[in-house]
Amino acid sequence: MTHVEIPKNYKPLNNETLIDFINGKENLKEIINSKQELKITEVGDGNLNLVFFADSENKSICIKQPLPYVRVLKDWPLTLKRSFFEFEYMKIHSAHVGHLIPKIYDYDKDFCTISMEKLSPHAIMRQGMVKRIKYINFAEHITEYLSKTLFFTSDLYLKAKVKRKYNVVFADNIELCKITEDLVFTEPYIISVRNRWTKPYLNKIKIEIENNTELKIAVNRLKLLFLTKTESLLHGDLHTGSIMCTLKDTKIIDPEFAFYGPMGFDIGALLANLLISFFSQDGHDIKKGDGEIYKKWILETINNVWNSFELKFLNLWKSNPNGDVFSSVFFNAKEEIDVENERKIFLKNIFHDSLGFAAAKMIRRIFGFAHNIDFELIKNEKIRAQCETKCSSLAIKMMVNAKEYENIEALTEDVIKFNTSD
Amino acid sequence: MTHVEIPKNYKPLNNETLIDFINGKENLKEIINSKQELKITEVGDGNLNLVFFADSENKSICIKQPLPYVRVLKDWPLTLKRSFFEFEYMKIHSAHVGHLIPKIYDYDKDFCTISMEKLSPHAIMRQGMVKRIKYINFAEHITEYLSKTLFFTSDLYLKAKVKRKYNVVFADNIELCKITEDLVFTEPYIISVRNRWTKPYLNKIKIEIENNTELKIAVNRLKLLFLTKTESLLHGDLHTGSIMCTLKDTKIIDPEFAFYGPMGFDIGALLANLLISFFSQDGHDIKKGDGEIYKKWILETINNVWNSFELKFLNLWKSNPNGDVFSSVFFNAKEEIDVENERKIFLKNIFHDSLGFAAAKMIRRIFGFAHNIDFELIKNEKIRAQCETKCSSLAIKMMVNAKEYENIEALTEDVIKFNTSD
Repeated sequence: MTHVEIPKNYKPLNNETLIDFINGKENLKEIINSKQELKITEVGDGNLNLVFFADSENKSICIKQPLPYVRVLKDWPLTLKRSFFEFEYMKIHSAHVGHLIPKIYDYDKDFCTISMEKLSPHAIMRQGMVKRIKYINFAEHITEYLSKTLFFTSDLYLKAKVKRKYNVVFADNIELCKITEDLVFTEPYIISVRNRWTKPYLNKIKIEIENNTELKIAVNRLKLLFLTKTESLLHGDLHTGSIMCTLKDTKIIDPEFAFYGPMGFDIGALLANLLISFFSQDGHDIKKGDGEIYKKWILETINNVWNSFELKFLNLWKSNPNGDVFSSVFFNAKEEIDVENERKIFLKNIFHDSLGFAAAKMIRRIFGFAHNIDFELIKNEKIRAQCETKCSSLAIKMMVNAKEYENIEALTEDVIKFNTSD
Repeated sequence: MTHVEIPKNYKPLNNETLIDFINGKENLKEIINSKQELKITEVGDGNLNLVFFADSENKSICIKQPLPYVRVLKDWPLTLKRSFFEFEYMKIHSAHVGHLIPKIYDYDKDFCTISMEKLSPHAIMRQGMVKRIKYINFAEHITEYLSKTLFFTSDLYLKAKVKRKYNVVFADNIELCKITEDLVFTEPYIISVRNRWTKPYLNKIKIEIENNTELKIAVNRLKLLFLTKTESLLHGDLHTGSIMCTLKDTKIIDPEFAFYGPMGFDIGALLANLLISFFSQDGHDIKKGDGEIYKKWILETINNVWNSFELKFLNLWKSNPNGDVFSSVFFNAKEEIDVENERKIFLKNIFHDSLGFAAAKMIRRIFGFAHNIDFELIKNEKIRAQCETKCSSLAIKMMVNAKEYENIEALTEDVIKFNTSD
């Protein structure tokens, strides 16, 4: 079992000790600026951490503290250093997407806490999507986030010196990466005690997955990319549970899985979770077909996410040819057509990576350890299994044939086909 | 200008202080085991470091010490930490290829020295090849070296945890990587004061290179691989000047450029330098055609290097399916044919990477900052230029069309064609 290093003064905080913690920090006291007693609430509903809200009359802060184990599974030790990676990720990206992440007030090395803006009235996007809320500005915001975080930490923009230094820091986020390596890229494809699925309905597909050589080769190719392609500083866990929304605002949270990896992994995580939401909608119908309009919105959003990401990324690249590759020192104005063509080839590869990673993320949420409320809230197991069957059948095709999708519309057309098949 | 961190007690050694240095170390004294005075010789003929031999009656050691600048260019500061990376590289690889590198006796953190076996009667392979010495065991040795160093530090063999830790160490070898990024992947393709070439004969090709958009896109793709593909722990500078040979023995030295990068970069460096030697031979003829037999041997060696590397790598992979990708947990015996096919696809990609990187290395030695004696010793500039023209013309084709070479024989056939063209 992994040995977790614990800073000497580390203690898990509670509603009482948190008040002393805040009062011991001038920067936090100043934000809260309260003469009255603080109201403390522990709201961590995730799998990993303690999350506290501290509210005064008119100011609030959110304090996130890791525990030296996985919260839902206490015999699974997990490094406290994950909050360091989360903090470093936010620090690096705040220059470009500060308005799309919570404001950071404090990082405490002893308690491993991150103190930040309490997001209100934001809701977890996944929960909103179960309620069929149309986040009409979401695609605009997330594509700004994706294009800027991925471009500005890539070798297309950074000098190699800066990028390699970042990689020295994040290559050490070994334990969190291992969770992904095991839960996303390995266990769903083999027999593992941590797997679960809607039995007995999905037994047949589970066995098909274990015996599909092409699929297993494809997932190993993706795993190899995850292990070897240090393309950009990724969020590493960019599903709809790591996004908080209002109708007007979008904030990305929880980047503790941050590492230098393939761009398509973040994009794929997002696409996967939008697709999961899509395939879950029929299971949430009260009257058959009452989710049709919402499903249509999801597919439009998926199309927008890729197309708008691609456009924004291309524009950033074109306007900032300052990195150590494809930089302006190599090319003159007459060569722009060819360079632009090369940029499009690059983006086409990212698109195919993204579809592969999306597929891996879809399969792990149906056959692996951690599932999503999108499907889990469908009480009727037979109906849930129907949704999950369609979703995983598409995922299998996406992973094996990623390169055959010419564009995102080809994918969303396939989504409709797979969803209407019975 | 870069600031070079210098350990407090660091001093460049000289013939006198080296004796005190050795006498201050029990481990070195024990090896030398001398009652008489040591004979000290400084033999560093490379561009970067001091290299001393300390000889007693019947024992010798070699002590390598970096200087805080590039030896041939004192106003180019360079980190002393490079000896740390060299030492770490040798430590990691010694488990598998210890017999193909010098024995390491000591690493001194203050003086940044590596004390190691003095290789005797070995000669620098490049020098031997100018003298047309056939190193008949070389292909056998170097393919063992390449296959083992590249396989055993890849994700095909290592657990991700170990590999990521190695990467934390080597991602920091920023300054040495930058030398490659600038001298190999950038400057030859643009106007740069550090470039030089055989003027005026090669002026036309130099301008063609600067204006060849396809080529510049290709070299940027390679540079991106160099920056982002953390595939194996590479030597990083595996030319024939980093190899010492006798007819029976081969030793690889000078891995201070070590970093996690694409496998094809080490293989390509080697292929490039064999090709450079080939194209230089006509320039060393005393009587026209007297190098034909040697040239034939070089081409056979090139074919052997790739084919034997591929075979050995495939066998290592097949016998050690224990890493975190393509491991035996995914596949059963019936799937072996498909897995073996996938291994071959993987090796085909490495082959194409290798040809691209080889081309980059050939071009940099003809148009960039640092040249090789293979061409430089050809006194007649017109003849040298003829050799360099053929070599660089092939390199341009190799870089742009790497993927069109089906196998190494297709390349060596092209070598003959380019060499006989006038």
